[in-house]
Amino acid sequence: MAAMTEFKPQHFNWRMEGSVGVISLDRPDRKNPLTFESYAELRDLFRDLVYIDEVKAVVFASNGGNFCSGGDVKDIIGPLLDRDMKGLLEFTRMTGDLVKAMRACPQPIVAAVDGVCVGAGAMIALFSDLRLGTPEAKTAFLFTRVGLAGCDMGACAMLPRVIGQGRAAELLYSGRSMSADEGERWGFFNRLVETDALEDEAVALAQRFAAGPNFGNMMTKTMLNQEWSMTLDQAIEAEAQAQAICMQTRDFKRAHDAFIEKQKPVFEGD
Amino acid sequence: MAAMTEFKPQHFNWRMEGSVGVISLDRPDRKNPLTFESYAELRDLFRDLVYIDEVKAVVFASNGGNFCSGGDVKDIIGPLLDRDMKGLLEFTRMTGDLVKAMRACPQPIVAAVDGVCVGAGAMIALFSDLRLGTPEAKTAFLFTRVGLAGCDMGACAMLPRVIGQGRAAELLYSGRSMSADEGERWGFFNRLVETDALEDEAVALAQRFAAGPNFGNMMTKTMLNQEWSMTLDQAIEAEAQAQAICMQTRDFKRAHDAFIEKQKPVFEGD
Amino acid sequence: MAAMTEFKPQHFNWRMEGSVGVISLDRPDRKNPLTFESYAELRDLFRDLVYIDEVKAVVFASNGGNFCSGGDVKDIIGPLLDRDMKGLLEFTRMTGDLVKAMRACPQPIVAAVDGVCVGAGAMIALFSDLRLGTPEAKTAFLFTRVGLAGCDMGACAMLPRVIGQGRAAELLYSGRSMSADEGERWGFFNRLVETDALEDEAVALAQRFAAGPNFGNMMTKTMLNQEWSMTLDQAIEAEAQAQAICMQTRDFKRAHDAFIEKQKPVFEGD
Repeated sequence: MAAMTEFKPQHFNWRMEGSVGVISLDRPDRKNPLTFESYAELRDLFRDLVYIDEVKAVVFASNGGNFCSGGDVKDIIGPLLDRDMKGLLEFTRMTGDLVKAMRACPQPIVAAVDGVCVGAGAMIALFSDLRLGTPEAKTAFLFTRVGLAGCDMGACAMLPRVIGQGRAAELLYSGRSMSADEGERWGFFNRLVETDALEDEAVALAQRFAAGPNFGNMMTKTMLNQEWSMTLDQAIEAEAQAQAICMQTRDFKRAHDAFIEKQKPVFEGD
Repeated sequence: MAAMTEFKPQHFNWRMEGSVGVISLDRPDRKNPLTFESYAELRDLFRDLVYIDEVKAVVFASNGGNFCSGGDVKDIIGPLLDRDMKGLLEFTRMTGDLVKAMRACPQPIVAAVDGVCVGAGAMIALFSDLRLGTPEAKTAFLFTRVGLAGCDMGACAMLPRVIGQGRAAELLYSGRSMSADEGERWGFFNRLVETDALEDEAVALAQRFAAGPNFGNMMTKTMLNQEWSMTLDQAIEAEAQAQAICMQTRDFKRAHDAFIEKQKPVFEGD
Repeated sequence: MAAMTEFKPQHFNWRMEGSVGVISLDRPDRKNPLTFESYAELRDLFRDLVYIDEVKAVVFASNGGNFCSGGDVKDIIGPLLDRDMKGLLEFTRMTGDLVKAMRACPQPIVAAVDGVCVGAGAMIALFSDLRLGTPEAKTAFLFTRVGLAGCDMGACAMLPRVIGQGRAAELLYSGRSMSADEGERWGFFNRLVETDALEDEAVALAQRFAAGPNFGNMMTKTMLNQEWSMTLDQAIEAEAQAQAICMQTRDFKRAHDAFIEKQKPVFEGD
């Protein structure tokens, strides 16, 4: 792929801020719904990011005061009603592949959530590594509102890990909005910032991660995924191996040498 | 089984509020202890609920200002002292089978917790899908107080998922009471309501779930259980399949059609 | 091993308070760094504790206003730079073996955290069963600061279980300090106490656990580990077996008899 500063996706916005890639959906007039096309192109981007070394962290931003209104009723739900099981599974696997790809890429992902963040949009926020929100953020796992189950794109696995099983159950059964304040108290949002500052703060946080050590960040993300269903002893052994690998990077030596010289380390990702 | 409006259990109270079944224990003078007989009859009810379509959600309510005082010292603990291992395991498996059945029935279960909620009573609350409490709720996993371990009826698996590992460890080792306020802050209680309003609020919440989509709710509950020990990628694939199944229900089309006509959907559970 | 009142470790402090063993690191002038030797000796102690019946609970205390500054840059990180993979894995497995041994010993461990609690020190606190902190406690999983990954000694498995996945991700990617207040809100600290009272409160809590039932506490700790990656139904069956075993202890009968006689039970651990 060419330099990511030149990347022009067809179905969402992209720009680079230093080594941070900033994504936002591009239909602010309709609160940024997802379409078949934007799902697929986002999935492809996150898959490609495995091999794109120049992007060190990602911000999934809001646009026009809203994060994402989820799968559009006319563009997505309507056509799904005409599909057979093969076609339905093709769709649900594509949405699942998006969040799988978000977990599998090495870059930490910061969601910057303003306004409406619902349905598949809430899942994109949930499968980001962490989340900043504004006081106006309204997050709803509203799958039950459209006649479906709360188990969409991994919600029943991830939401209990983020906010606890009891709170997750209520949100998934009811489809109700979680307020920004609830989200902060419960650990969905790492913190709340004013709307005007949201994107800058998210980019600043992502740039802090992007300053590295990026090999280490990749391994942290990998192990947060890998250890999901290990025993505790297996996880400890897996981390012994993972960290021993990281100890062979030059960034480990760079940190040591900088410390000895009372300087701030400059990491290079190798 | 005959219509559940006519169901008359021998060892606890039951009534229907619309399509919501309301259970409470029936010894308010003794803060509602469990007995061998009420354990078994509750287990059988929750097992039967798999096939009872007219009950769409369940409230496990308090009675006389208390939820449940757990296994009675005279009626349960005394007799257990005379049992051999075969007999003991028969008892601990029966108690485990109660909470297994609570997780395996398709109806969301809302616990309405007032006053004393201890021992096996705390486990019934914990294995409900969610919990409302009153400021007077005192919840204790007091197994250590009776000389036993905190690992009773799945406590060491579920409690850390609801309130976090560190808080769970303290409650399980000490057997101390968790206050209502702690319970709300930690995610054990979804919210606190005044004592007078407790049962009405719990029934109202359960009726909201019972309004459906009930096929979806069943699948949400199923997947919250199923994904417990899957890898994250397995969970995402499992939800792709589960949600594709839900997309073939008529409730999915009902929601779509209602939305297009700017009406509120009426779900029918198929 | 001789009576634990006589135990004189070479690389950390040890004393008995009743049946509670109190550990602290012994380099307060340097905020109590770990060394190759103290890692190994701590690992060996926790392994031995499996067989040391006179120690019923453990406090891992602070010293001179700090808990632990982690692996020392000069004493540990410097020498690691010269090691090959075999040597690196030997080190990371030793650190992993310390936290494995902390989980595998039957005694509940209470960390008493004042001041600096970082790196491997934060992991010792995290792998304790619970934690008291002071308002001055500064806890940082600062592995990224030294050029490494956040996946060290089981952090990616345990930290999300204690404080939630989203908050864990931020701390592990950034390496930033978690304040005492954040730690209390998020469930890392069970409570905060004033610095002057920290060790006394931690010892008092540990003595409460040490009063027993110790066979039950051992089983609680065992099952909190065992059920980590079981299905929910497997966990419930595992607890049915574990609790049936506990019902054959004399402490179960002691509790029953004391209750009948309206006395406080005296547990003896068998």
